[in-house]
Amino acid sequence: MGSSEADADMLRCAEEAGAVVAKIGAALVTGGRGGIMEAASKGCAEAGGVVIAVTPGVDMNEANRWAHHVIPTGLGWARNVITAIAGDVIVVIGGASGTLSEIAFAWMYNRPIVAMSESGGWAKKLAGQSLDHRRAGEVVVNCRTMNDLEVALRRILDEPNIWERRAVNIGAFG
Amino acid sequence: MGSSEADADMLRCAEEAGAVVAKIGAALVTGGRGGIMEAASKGCAEAGGVVIAVTPGVDMNEANRWAHHVIPTGLGWARNVITAIAGDVIVVIGGASGTLSEIAFAWMYNRPIVAMSESGGWAKKLAGQSLDHRRAGEVVVNCRTMNDLEVALRRILDEPNIWERRAVNIGAFG
Amino acid sequence: MGSSEADADMLRCAEEAGAVVAKIGAALVTGGRGGIMEAASKGCAEAGGVVIAVTPGVDMNEANRWAHHVIPTGLGWARNVITAIAGDVIVVIGGASGTLSEIAFAWMYNRPIVAMSESGGWAKKLAGQSLDHRRAGEVVVNCRTMNDLEVALRRILDEPNIWERRAVNIGAFG
Amino acid sequence: MGSSEADADMLRCAEEAGAVVAKIGAALVTGGRGGIMEAASKGCAEAGGVVIAVTPGVDMNEANRWAHHVIPTGLGWARNVITAIAGDVIVVIGGASGTLSEIAFAWMYNRPIVAMSESGGWAKKLAGQSLDHRRAGEVVVNCRTMNDLEVALRRILDEPNIWERRAVNIGAFG
Repeated sequence: MGSSEADADMLRCAEEAGAVVAKIGAALVTGGRGGIMEAASKGCAEAGGVVIAVTPGVDMNEANRWAHHVIPTGLGWARNVITAIAGDVIVVIGGASGTLSEIAFAWMYNRPIVAMSESGGWAKKLAGQSLDHRRAGEVVVNCRTMNDLEVALRRILDEPNIWERRAVNIGAFG
Repeated sequence: MGSSEADADMLRCAEEAGAVVAKIGAALVTGGRGGIMEAASKGCAEAGGVVIAVTPGVDMNEANRWAHHVIPTGLGWARNVITAIAGDVIVVIGGASGTLSEIAFAWMYNRPIVAMSESGGWAKKLAGQSLDHRRAGEVVVNCRTMNDLEVALRRILDEPNIWERRAVNIGAFG
Repeated sequence: MGSSEADADMLRCAEEAGAVVAKIGAALVTGGRGGIMEAASKGCAEAGGVVIAVTPGVDMNEANRWAHHVIPTGLGWARNVITAIAGDVIVVIGGASGTLSEIAFAWMYNRPIVAMSESGGWAKKLAGQSLDHRRAGEVVVNCRTMNDLEVALRRILDEPNIWERRAVNIGAFG
Repeated sequence: MGSSEADADMLRCAEEAGAVVAKIGAALVTGGRGGIMEAASKGCAEAGGVVIAVTPGVDMNEANRWAHHVIPTGLGWARNVITAIAGDVIVVIGGASGTLSEIAFAWMYNRPIVAMSESGGWAKKLAGQSLDHRRAGEVVVNCRTMNDLEVALRRILDEPNIWERRAVNIGAFG
């Protein structure tokens, strides 16, 4: 997921995170639009990864140019529930209210959440925090660097049968 | 909206808030289940107000016993986007991650949001705060007492044509 | 539910069906827009019944003027799944492709379906038919007259505990 | 899309249709479950094509084993609106009420629809038919053979810019 308004640091963070997703061999799922979504998609695609865009509208052309596959939903912002659960892990970068809705759904639906805390926004506010008592002892994982991110993703995804069955999805939003 | 787990103070707050909704002549919309949702529905119904339950499942009987009208959605937690926009104003009481998703959607879709800050949870954390820059100068309105709530609701809803056209909805979640 | 394009006979049928809903003491749920939805809402409201509009957009003012309660969904035509399951019984009048999607969902989700076969459209094509083998022995109930409709609704809804718990919803679309 | 109950002829048709999708270089999108969805996915995957599963539940493992990418929605059967619009073209094979809901949405959202009329079900009933007056002069394209299907898909997709931008999606349901 990812907001359209983002400063240069956030966008660089998103692009680098996208490249990490490609490096570990996962597919990237985003909301398919501009800003952080587009930067993460660019980073992943240029590093050889597969990018899937789950868009709010009906038109296939709504997705940014880096998406290999487009899944339009026609649901408006309710599509955020899908971007939230379509990742085996969710990576949060920056983030405004749309991102907040995605974090909340990812939490409710038990998806592991990683936040790039240096990127600001809701990623910064919620890194290291628990959203409620539903997931005892769990927090949004705080990553400060791309190395932190790679280590965290590999650790969370360290279940061989995930990788054998299908492409692992990593959702990025901010 | 409203979580199923809530302590006695939160439930009393919810019940009193439901009565305020009835007092000003609005209909109450909740997620239709237990906890804060049920307490607010009870408070509204016992004070003579109309209660509408927008539930996550398909079964009409999923709603708590205070609902006069039940709208099942079959959407799981994605129904939170509907409870978020089905209120002309949204009242937050306590609140866990489900409530957080509703606050985020209400913010994105420009619904006025009022938080009972003494009730804890996300209501307390977000009262007086802005979720992002999308709604310049706006915040989640901080109410400490039922009198605050009544004043805030009357002020926000002070547009005669709203009341003339149809029942005003007030969404309660927590 | 109900299409916006409808001829005079269909609209009269819808208005009379709305009055039947009011007569038996149920609430009417429609998609909240024009054409058959509006005619059924008018018929119900003028006969003293309660009308609920479940609309595809976000704006409360999207509903026609006869709705007492408006539930916007923001889901576009995906809201048809909600109008399909928000009725204890569904009444089909005329009907184009939107209506067809609602009939299909009502069938999948086990809602009884009644079709006013004289009104044309998908109501005529599917009256007396089964949609698939999922509901063994069941068909879309064929009603030719308002008396047929009243008898069918009373028969289907002949379960006291439905009426005791809450308002019974009858969805109308066409 | 595709129902779980299907006879051997339908399944063979689905598997062959999946291979046609791979042959023309498109990606296949299905509802990700058993029956026709699984047969089409197998046919596409074994012929070297990419398969995307858009599933009704939340669990990534709900998809059949042929899916390369899984997009869970958590929406129940409301996910049919997504499978209906996530194809640049939709291919209908056999088909029960779930398929009917997808055909209706594909029609409403202006997706070209092709039906394998020999496969029975709603594919047979609607091949060559118009669903309503919304799409003047258009019908569900009637294909009797795999050669018909390949010709129809190539004709409908004969717009170079579709293929340049991203993978073309072909939705299969039945």
